[in-house]
Amino acid sequence: MTQLDKARQQAVTAEMKAVAAREGVSEQFIRQQVEAGLVVIPANANHRNLEPRGIGAGLSTKVNANIGTSSDISNISDEIEKVKAAVKAGADAVMDLSTGGDISATRRLIIKECPVPVGTVPVYQAAIKAIKTRGGIVKMTAEDLFEAIEEQAADGVDFITVHCGVTRKVLEALEKNPRVAGIVSRGGSFLAGWIKHNNAENPLYEQYGCLLEIARKYDVTLSLGDGLRPGCIADATDSSQVAELMVLGELVIEARRQGVQVMVEGPGHLPMDQIETNMKLEKELCHGAPFYVLGPLVTDIAAGYDHITGAIGGAMAAMAGADFLCYVTPAEHLGLPDVNDVKNGVIASCIAAHAADIVKGVKGAKLRDFRMSEARKKLDWETQRKLAIDPERFEQVRKKAATEGDACSMCGDFCAMKIASEYVEKSGKCF
Amino acid sequence: MTQLDKARQQAVTAEMKAVAAREGVSEQFIRQQVEAGLVVIPANANHRNLEPRGIGAGLSTKVNANIGTSSDISNISDEIEKVKAAVKAGADAVMDLSTGGDISATRRLIIKECPVPVGTVPVYQAAIKAIKTRGGIVKMTAEDLFEAIEEQAADGVDFITVHCGVTRKVLEALEKNPRVAGIVSRGGSFLAGWIKHNNAENPLYEQYGCLLEIARKYDVTLSLGDGLRPGCIADATDSSQVAELMVLGELVIEARRQGVQVMVEGPGHLPMDQIETNMKLEKELCHGAPFYVLGPLVTDIAAGYDHITGAIGGAMAAMAGADFLCYVTPAEHLGLPDVNDVKNGVIASCIAAHAADIVKGVKGAKLRDFRMSEARKKLDWETQRKLAIDPERFEQVRKKAATEGDACSMCGDFCAMKIASEYVEKSGKCF
Repeated sequence: MTQLDKARQQAVTAEMKAVAAREGVSEQFIRQQVEAGLVVIPANANHRNLEPRGIGAGLSTKVNANIGTSSDISNISDEIEKVKAAVKAGADAVMDLSTGGDISATRRLIIKECPVPVGTVPVYQAAIKAIKTRGGIVKMTAEDLFEAIEEQAADGVDFITVHCGVTRKVLEALEKNPRVAGIVSRGGSFLAGWIKHNNAENPLYEQYGCLLEIARKYDVTLSLGDGLRPGCIADATDSSQVAELMVLGELVIEARRQGVQVMVEGPGHLPMDQIETNMKLEKELCHGAPFYVLGPLVTDIAAGYDHITGAIGGAMAAMAGADFLCYVTPAEHLGLPDVNDVKNGVIASCIAAHAADIVKGVKGAKLRDFRMSEARKKLDWETQRKLAIDPERFEQVRKKAATEGDACSMCGDFCAMKIASEYVEKSGKCF
Repeated sequence: MTQLDKARQQAVTAEMKAVAAREGVSEQFIRQQVEAGLVVIPANANHRNLEPRGIGAGLSTKVNANIGTSSDISNISDEIEKVKAAVKAGADAVMDLSTGGDISATRRLIIKECPVPVGTVPVYQAAIKAIKTRGGIVKMTAEDLFEAIEEQAADGVDFITVHCGVTRKVLEALEKNPRVAGIVSRGGSFLAGWIKHNNAENPLYEQYGCLLEIARKYDVTLSLGDGLRPGCIADATDSSQVAELMVLGELVIEARRQGVQVMVEGPGHLPMDQIETNMKLEKELCHGAPFYVLGPLVTDIAAGYDHITGAIGGAMAAMAGADFLCYVTPAEHLGLPDVNDVKNGVIASCIAAHAADIVKGVKGAKLRDFRMSEARKKLDWETQRKLAIDPERFEQVRKKAATEGDACSMCGDFCAMKIASEYVEKSGKCF
């Protein structure tokens, strides 16, 4: 039985209780949201050490960190370091996107070491197996795909990206509406290539029932991938993107019908004035399913700093309703992120998530800023450090340009806080 | 005669021509915008090597970098390095906020070395002189203040922050509406302290005519400071802030009447859902005067990463009408920024400005993203590098995790661009 099944039976699971406690909301609220499909709790029973997270409406905005090996760089211990860095920096989930080395062994160790939900994209493993055993991605069979999915589900993966919406019909929309950057989703390109080469329908769409069976068996949450997400500003909110989203909306209904937890993935690259529209489109077309966005990146020109580009888009997306932000690191578009990139990516997304939570009215969000500002006013540096999003970095930067006074070295003797306290507020009236 | 006087006489100045060429718009458009007070061109005739910038409606969003010594850290050559780093990274203006060492010598060297408009906050020098010669900030005289302003104007400063709106009446609003963080503007705290201690009106308000005379004489653009800007999320858009903004709106009219170019400064710390309101308030209350915002910072808890917090707020502010973004560096709230902080702050603000320019319809903004995406699709790394916001950083990150293939080390052999080209687009139909 999945969390959704249990919620429908009015049961409050241990996972719902843990989520309620973490969010500071009632257990019944969590149960109701799960029942309505507005919140998912990705929690595979085979992920033993999991501290569950709830993702969706009424909860704090969550952050995911993508890690994993590539064909160029493949070292399991590096990836475990990235998991630890991501979780320490505040990630609520980690996706293992490994495509290099021993993919199964990497995944199993990551699940073992990772206290937050772990996601994967099983088509990677299936495609790579097809290359090795049959000579090409396009030689992949539906069995390869479902075998990979079942193997990963059995290993304890909590959520999987499945590009079920990359259908023949959606690819026709792509042909009629040319793009600048084409398909930029890795899994999307695998499946589109497979469909075109084999002149056959996407097995994840055609045999969606098989997928739902596996997902239900392990309570793996489906994350319906956006294989046609825009990969540049010019391609944003085009016909193929919206056509795929409409397919995903239909698949959301079917998943819920089968008791399978489901969320939906979204862009990608979006100009700022299309972010709100995209969030509302997903919430309507996909019936309130939790929305999991990659970035979005608000310009194409900032490679090297795309954690910042993604933080701008992520904050705006979350304010407009996105529930789950996939981080982008400074290495995006340039190379595989290292552990430092992972940390910087997570922090940037956590800033975006928190900024949105302040305006979403998420419990406790405003209070933390209030406490920080009280401490700042009092020049209470220790409390500020503790409340900071990254206490270590707070300390490093503060020490780098030290002062001998009680303010900081930016203003030194001429600290506004001190001067206002001395001259303006001594009556005690102002504050 | 100021740029505004000349625009009124239908003259197109060399500065207007330079701005028109830089923006790719007509010279008459620039002249009309200057005449209407919707655009300012801070260009003091005594700033010899200036490459002028236009700031305001219909033009690209501009970025300012604050530099300068403090009482704790004071080294002129460091500040010159910061000027160079800021300009190289894309800053359109530099403000010298020095309060330590030889303030006049520092300013003169900065003006000499700086090709973009230079701004200052003359009350700092006046207050420090008062401390040294009279024993305290509150002993500052109106003459100290106007002397500092005239000295700096004669030196070639292009724009000055003047906190004319910190009036007795506005401070009454502050007393009636207590704040968490009080006054966080340095200049604002100096003047508020002075007003309270001396039980006298702000000379910059009471003798605004003297200020306008000096500004007119040197064509120094006034940047009406927001001494009551909110210093934390909890204080945003409160009575004192809005009361001050209303005073500034009146002063905008008077400045324009006297032929003085004028812009208005704004927050500060704002929750995301108050940014648009603040931009519209300023544009209405201040009669379309160019709006120069500090950040805004969308959360209080991210010290160490406030360039990111500021980029989120800055992008949203610029989209909603802000014309000029004052950067925030990773050192904000913690210490004086070093040269690396300056670079990171400028780049983050330039990303925000560019993301906004895409949706503002600024000429050339979308095209750059389009060209970048074309190059990305072709895996043309050299063109990508050239178009990147920071080509050096692009190269560094790309080399850090190198690939032997033609893609990058994130996806290696499984690059979506390559796979889509190989299997999906070979018909030539899709793209």
